[in-house]
Amino acid sequence: MNISHQEVTVFLLSISVLLFLARFLGEMFNKIKQPSIIGEIFAGILLGPTLLGNIFPEIHAYLFPKTGAVPIAMEGITTLAVVMLLIVSGLEVNLSLIVRQTKTAFFTSTFGMVIPFILGFVPCYYFPHFFGIAPDSERVLLFALFMGTALSISALPVIARTLMDMNLLKSEMGMIIIASAIVNDLFGWVIFSFILGMMGGKKDGIGFEQQLMWIFGFLVFMFLILRKVIDKALPFIQKTFSYPGSILNFIFILGFLAAALTEYVGIHAIFGAFIAGVIIGDSSHLREKTREIIHQFVTNIFAPLFFISIGLKVDFVANFDLPVVLIVLVLAFAGKVIGAGLGARLGGMNLMESLAIGFGMNSRGAMEIILGLLALQAGLIQESVFVALVIMALLTSMLSAPAMGYFLNLSKRKSRLQDILTHKNIFILDAESSGDVLSTLAAKAAKDTGLSQEFILQELLDREKLLPTGIANGLAIPHAKLKITFPVVLLAVLKKPVDFKASDNIPASVVVLIISPGDESELYLNLLAETVTKLGDPDRVEAIAACKTTEEAAHLIKSFTA
Amino acid sequence: MNISHQEVTVFLLSISVLLFLARFLGEMFNKIKQPSIIGEIFAGILLGPTLLGNIFPEIHAYLFPKTGAVPIAMEGITTLAVVMLLIVSGLEVNLSLIVRQTKTAFFTSTFGMVIPFILGFVPCYYFPHFFGIAPDSERVLLFALFMGTALSISALPVIARTLMDMNLLKSEMGMIIIASAIVNDLFGWVIFSFILGMMGGKKDGIGFEQQLMWIFGFLVFMFLILRKVIDKALPFIQKTFSYPGSILNFIFILGFLAAALTEYVGIHAIFGAFIAGVIIGDSSHLREKTREIIHQFVTNIFAPLFFISIGLKVDFVANFDLPVVLIVLVLAFAGKVIGAGLGARLGGMNLMESLAIGFGMNSRGAMEIILGLLALQAGLIQESVFVALVIMALLTSMLSAPAMGYFLNLSKRKSRLQDILTHKNIFILDAESSGDVLSTLAAKAAKDTGLSQEFILQELLDREKLLPTGIANGLAIPHAKLKITFPVVLLAVLKKPVDFKASDNIPASVVVLIISPGDESELYLNLLAETVTKLGDPDRVEAIAACKTTEEAAHLIKSFTA
Repeated sequence: MNISHQEVTVFLLSISVLLFLARFLGEMFNKIKQPSIIGEIFAGILLGPTLLGNIFPEIHAYLFPKTGAVPIAMEGITTLAVVMLLIVSGLEVNLSLIVRQTKTAFFTSTFGMVIPFILGFVPCYYFPHFFGIAPDSERVLLFALFMGTALSISALPVIARTLMDMNLLKSEMGMIIIASAIVNDLFGWVIFSFILGMMGGKKDGIGFEQQLMWIFGFLVFMFLILRKVIDKALPFIQKTFSYPGSILNFIFILGFLAAALTEYVGIHAIFGAFIAGVIIGDSSHLREKTREIIHQFVTNIFAPLFFISIGLKVDFVANFDLPVVLIVLVLAFAGKVIGAGLGARLGGMNLMESLAIGFGMNSRGAMEIILGLLALQAGLIQESVFVALVIMALLTSMLSAPAMGYFLNLSKRKSRLQDILTHKNIFILDAESSGDVLSTLAAKAAKDTGLSQEFILQELLDREKLLPTGIANGLAIPHAKLKITFPVVLLAVLKKPVDFKASDNIPASVVVLIISPGDESELYLNLLAETVTKLGDPDRVEAIAACKTTEEAAHLIKSFTA
Repeated sequence: MNISHQEVTVFLLSISVLLFLARFLGEMFNKIKQPSIIGEIFAGILLGPTLLGNIFPEIHAYLFPKTGAVPIAMEGITTLAVVMLLIVSGLEVNLSLIVRQTKTAFFTSTFGMVIPFILGFVPCYYFPHFFGIAPDSERVLLFALFMGTALSISALPVIARTLMDMNLLKSEMGMIIIASAIVNDLFGWVIFSFILGMMGGKKDGIGFEQQLMWIFGFLVFMFLILRKVIDKALPFIQKTFSYPGSILNFIFILGFLAAALTEYVGIHAIFGAFIAGVIIGDSSHLREKTREIIHQFVTNIFAPLFFISIGLKVDFVANFDLPVVLIVLVLAFAGKVIGAGLGARLGGMNLMESLAIGFGMNSRGAMEIILGLLALQAGLIQESVFVALVIMALLTSMLSAPAMGYFLNLSKRKSRLQDILTHKNIFILDAESSGDVLSTLAAKAAKDTGLSQEFILQELLDREKLLPTGIANGLAIPHAKLKITFPVVLLAVLKKPVDFKASDNIPASVVVLIISPGDESELYLNLLAETVTKLGDPDRVEAIAACKTTEEAAHLIKSFTA
């Protein structure tokens, strides 16, 4: 009996209160089209020492005692929660999409790491007294190394959740951001554990060279061996043991084990959990029902408990030092947005997409706070710097979603047909029926939007039933309005014409699929009008239909839409 | 940072190991047709001080440290786990079924409480030295009161899980056992907190009279007010906020809150959680998908962690005192099986059913161990008595399912038609089609088997499609083989004949539905043969079809089948 009767009461009560306020504000932020994670972190600030602790200190002390079993039990829960969240995030990663983005991810992560590191290191090394460190102290180098690392590390859980909330996690851009963040954080943690080792603050665990070997061995084992074993094992488990019980267990047993291993090696537990999620989620034998059960339970019950716990840790008013906060903010924003953005641009994205990626990578959160706390305990930073890091982590996380949305809009929403309908979106199809065409295009659209093919196809078929979308002259323009942030236009040249029930009875030989954000009727009408006026002429349809290769068609369409 | 880096490693590793062994043995016990809970508790004994701790003390000490943050965090998790398990058990309770069983439940709980209490109290009061208590000590009365209470309390989580595993939770018998166990435990906890109060071991909380008032007020508020509010609120929440996210949250927020309240009042947290589950589950607006997500996640991830944690607490070999163990076992088995069985018999069940209920109520487990631990800490009992209580709790839990299965078999499986087809199973129906008849009978069968109406109906329709079940002479015998432990036979007299596609083209006016256990082909054939030979004669079918009331039909059928 480690927890007393009275502590059990407080423990259950405070979980109930935390869950309520976190999810309530989360839902409220959802209503104003913000990711719910912001509401959940904000709920922590309201319930933490900053507000509740200052206004009703007795209630605060009762609900969140600082001594005894409750804070330890609570940290046990939030540790499990963040590990579970990363397992779920891993399950949703599309490995083949990441592999396709290697080049962009490489540039994004390299620049998104090096530039923030320099921006963090240089001022801290040359002006340590500004951050409360004596200039002649032997710790200046360590301090500067720490600040460089703290600014260059991302926050995988925050980024993954933000992308999930924005419905972007499974999209191409989401995968670039996730892939870059993984690489970033892996390096960041290695450097950080190296700093801790130099400070003598790391008393257990293993040496630095060994650590690198462990990580390398771990990644090789997970991706090259265990991934294939799991793909073979899942059908066996599902057949031999109870379903979905045994699969749920398998996922968490493996996830916790991998988490324990990476934590042991000195990288944070969440990496192992994330990688375990990725390699299990990669198996085609993992059923949708299993994912759904885990996803719903973890994102709705455990993730909020983790995010609200961040705000509970500090008093943001008492330890507030404006100049330090501002400098840290400027360095953090500049370093990550410029660094990751520049990397994405060099990796082949357009300017607005690069800025969106820059802000996507800019999210800090849990990681900085954990790092900051370790550094504070080791006497490496002052409390004012710690508060600045926390505020920076929160602001970067809070601005991530709106800024991404804004630049994605600039990049995608306001563009005209010629910008959206690039050669990547043009296909030559050999289809038997309109259903065939729609199914193939829905599969392509699924990759761009992060929605499922089945869902998109259903929407398209429903729309088709309502009113056929064959226009005239052999052109058909199926469309759907979905919950996405930017429009997708795909053009299919059909090798043999297929009936789309046009009023002139001419079967369609060119099909333009328009998927537009549900709340943007005008955008859809503009795209439709542009498609009809620029491509709808009988001669032009015929010319496009005669194309034999995608390049030829793309060239021709460019000449029509320019 | 309350938990060190090294402790996080151990914490995650040990959860992973616990989950693996608990579920692996659980699945193995399932394979030999035992409830998985037995495998889970057994896994705890293997990993606990009894086996692993004795053979590999270093590994045991590494995985399950006794000091520091890990044991506290682990207890936090298992506390949450048992609270969640009780919320889920509550969700599955059918309130209207319980209300129908008031009389039987009243007798069962009263006798199941009073007789074990007397059997516990008397020997401990008159022979305290046998249990290591000095006869002249002023604690003899308290000790005897404690032992009476410890023997009369049930283990709601164990019982609920056993019934779930046996697919009996939603059945009539399951509801009698659950209803009786709730009443039992409510009284047991009140008495126990009274004893703790007398010992001065209860330092916080509220007085005894106040406690009774709180409990009464809590029950009235939950069942009469909040139940109706929730039924109104659920559709609003589902419409206004995200689904299923907001509903999952609502269930756990309310569950944890109610748990905190009952814990505060001095009754264990699990009661509040259970009652909260019951009143939410009673709403017809709670969707199947929500139940499914919670059920799968909690029973597969959290419940095993709780049950395995029981075996981790003691060394069963070092503190073993055979005479004490035997006496406690005899008193416990005799008290509960005789008490609850006698109550059930007086409440109208037959002898074998009563014995099944007696063994169902006999399960102890978590509760005794928690009680025992509190008493041990307060110096009220010796370690040998504690170990005896734990062994008793485990053995009663482990024998519960097999004994229930055995007596239910004796009661139901081996009986002949006359025993199964009682007047409760005869109905007069006014139906338009064979589908109507089957749907109505499936609904009745659902109540007896604990399976869903939809599922049973689907099985019946599938069977009907394969081969029509109209026999001849106006008799139809639809049937299904399902995963149940005893057969169900229902007879419907149809006011107007309905076509069941008999080969003689005579529409059916008497329909006998036979549902038999899937693995008992012979039983089904016997019942079928008996039905055809005893009821299939044209005159007899006609005579039954002419009956106007259920009583008349029951009387007639009895004369045919006797």
